[in-house]
Amino acid sequence: MGKRIVIALGGNALGNSLKEQMEAALGTAQAITGLVAAGHEVVIVHGNGPQVGMIETAFETAAKADKLHYPVLPMSVCVALSQGYIGYDLQNVMRKALDARGIAKPVATIVTQVEVDPDDPAFASPTKPIGNFMTQAEAELLRTKGVPVMEDAGRGWRQVVASPKPKAIIETAVIKAMLKAGQIPIAAGGGGIPVARKADGQYHGMSAVIDKDFSAAKLAESIGADMLIILTAVEKVAINFGKPNQQNLDCLTVAEARAYIEDRQFAKGSMLPKVEAAIRFIEAKPDGEALITLLAKAKEGIEGTTGTRITA
Amino acid sequence: MGKRIVIALGGNALGNSLKEQMEAALGTAQAITGLVAAGHEVVIVHGNGPQVGMIETAFETAAKADKLHYPVLPMSVCVALSQGYIGYDLQNVMRKALDARGIAKPVATIVTQVEVDPDDPAFASPTKPIGNFMTQAEAELLRTKGVPVMEDAGRGWRQVVASPKPKAIIETAVIKAMLKAGQIPIAAGGGGIPVARKADGQYHGMSAVIDKDFSAAKLAESIGADMLIILTAVEKVAINFGKPNQQNLDCLTVAEARAYIEDRQFAKGSMLPKVEAAIRFIEAKPDGEALITLLAKAKEGIEGTTGTRITA
Repeated sequence: MGKRIVIALGGNALGNSLKEQMEAALGTAQAITGLVAAGHEVVIVHGNGPQVGMIETAFETAAKADKLHYPVLPMSVCVALSQGYIGYDLQNVMRKALDARGIAKPVATIVTQVEVDPDDPAFASPTKPIGNFMTQAEAELLRTKGVPVMEDAGRGWRQVVASPKPKAIIETAVIKAMLKAGQIPIAAGGGGIPVARKADGQYHGMSAVIDKDFSAAKLAESIGADMLIILTAVEKVAINFGKPNQQNLDCLTVAEARAYIEDRQFAKGSMLPKVEAAIRFIEAKPDGEALITLLAKAKEGIEGTTGTRITA
Repeated sequence: MGKRIVIALGGNALGNSLKEQMEAALGTAQAITGLVAAGHEVVIVHGNGPQVGMIETAFETAAKADKLHYPVLPMSVCVALSQGYIGYDLQNVMRKALDARGIAKPVATIVTQVEVDPDDPAFASPTKPIGNFMTQAEAELLRTKGVPVMEDAGRGWRQVVASPKPKAIIETAVIKAMLKAGQIPIAAGGGGIPVARKADGQYHGMSAVIDKDFSAAKLAESIGADMLIILTAVEKVAINFGKPNQQNLDCLTVAEARAYIEDRQFAKGSMLPKVEAAIRFIEAKPDGEALITLLAKAKEGIEGTTGTRITA
């Protein structure tokens, strides 16, 4: 029977350059189309780490070269640009993949704002990596200019921005309307455009990038999804990762996941937020399930033959 | 009785810088909200002339400074970025304006692709102005680098790109689903992302910017709108514009409009495409009506007390 599924795509599902993005996105689209063909309702959430960094860099470079009437763009606006950028590519390749299977379902990107708490402690300590990887020397130079940088899960150094938790997906009703019409929404791209309700009662853009796995979990909760699938670069969640006694996990209860987190089994900025996002979804919807697996294994994962399944 | 209305906003409704965009967009949102409060269904289409030029300039500057792994972005991708950029602002200020009137209707931007004919003669002679105004000297310098430039309606010089005519709005079904759910779509921003179906049967991005008034007319046709409103910097269409015998027009039939076009009464790149877009909509929907007026007069225009009304 068809399930309502929110799929969160990692940056690796989209590539690190325009050409890579187009090639990687097609493989992604084909995998997702397999789920649609199997009768599932899907909502696609994507990351934007490389792209939002590129956008910020482009505007910063142009502003410094005095080529623009504009100042450096706020991070919220950079996320908005990245949603148009990646969303276009994804809906274009989804169309290609759907057409190849003779599926006429419309697919489109909803520019999505995500509400955060302006008092979220994350604003005081930036932790979310964006942009390209740098050497330590490049990173140290950037730090002297007041830009926060951090070593990213053993893969190099990157700029970091605040990553507050999502409170609400502003455009939930629009996503629901698309699903009701049998359509495929792409939403909350890059974790969504971070906005906060200020004293004037209105939403204002915030300097942050929300973790797309947390936004996908909040979206899955908001639309009453049956399943949250987080697609990443590994087939299963593991404990003792990268050690001789590495153990891949097929199933995890929320309590087990919490114990492993307590035991620091999952890398910050890598597997940790994925497991935490899965927990958040299951806590909000105890009869739901979360799955973490490789993009190419999404279909097998749903069928229960691979990946790590997190349940209450 | 409520009408289904497509509103096309000119660049002047959005300002020429980020700050101007935010201020101008709020005034625009308040005017449109007035129409929603009066019981009309609205779809918002916006221009992106200044913004798409800014995006292209930023990426070109960064690419030259070797700051990006990316080459210069294709124009189709620049339009996609501009839809995220402007759409976010518009839906944010629309929310503010709707909330101020106690209207709960969701509003969201659909990243929209618009199909063009790859053999459209427009690709051979670029005419659509984008980006900032330049002096003649700056323009001549750009021309020596192979970038097409043109004098823009007496307001200065600008870069120009190809502007093919829209054949179809790819995401029409999504826009209809939002309207059916009582929502306010922002769509075909910047005239839509130009794509063409190539020999492989798939859509590919094209180097072009589609005129947003023509895309709005095509969208109005596609969703069976009752009315197309083109909001611009003047209250009424005029003949002998700027001359002692200038005559403002309250009404125009398609035949009269054609005669004035034949008589070169309307400036290229300014009033001409607006009148042509109105004609296209009326020809596709003879019981519809088109209205060209000032943004601030949109409500009075619909009530029939100002603006220029074009009918069959």
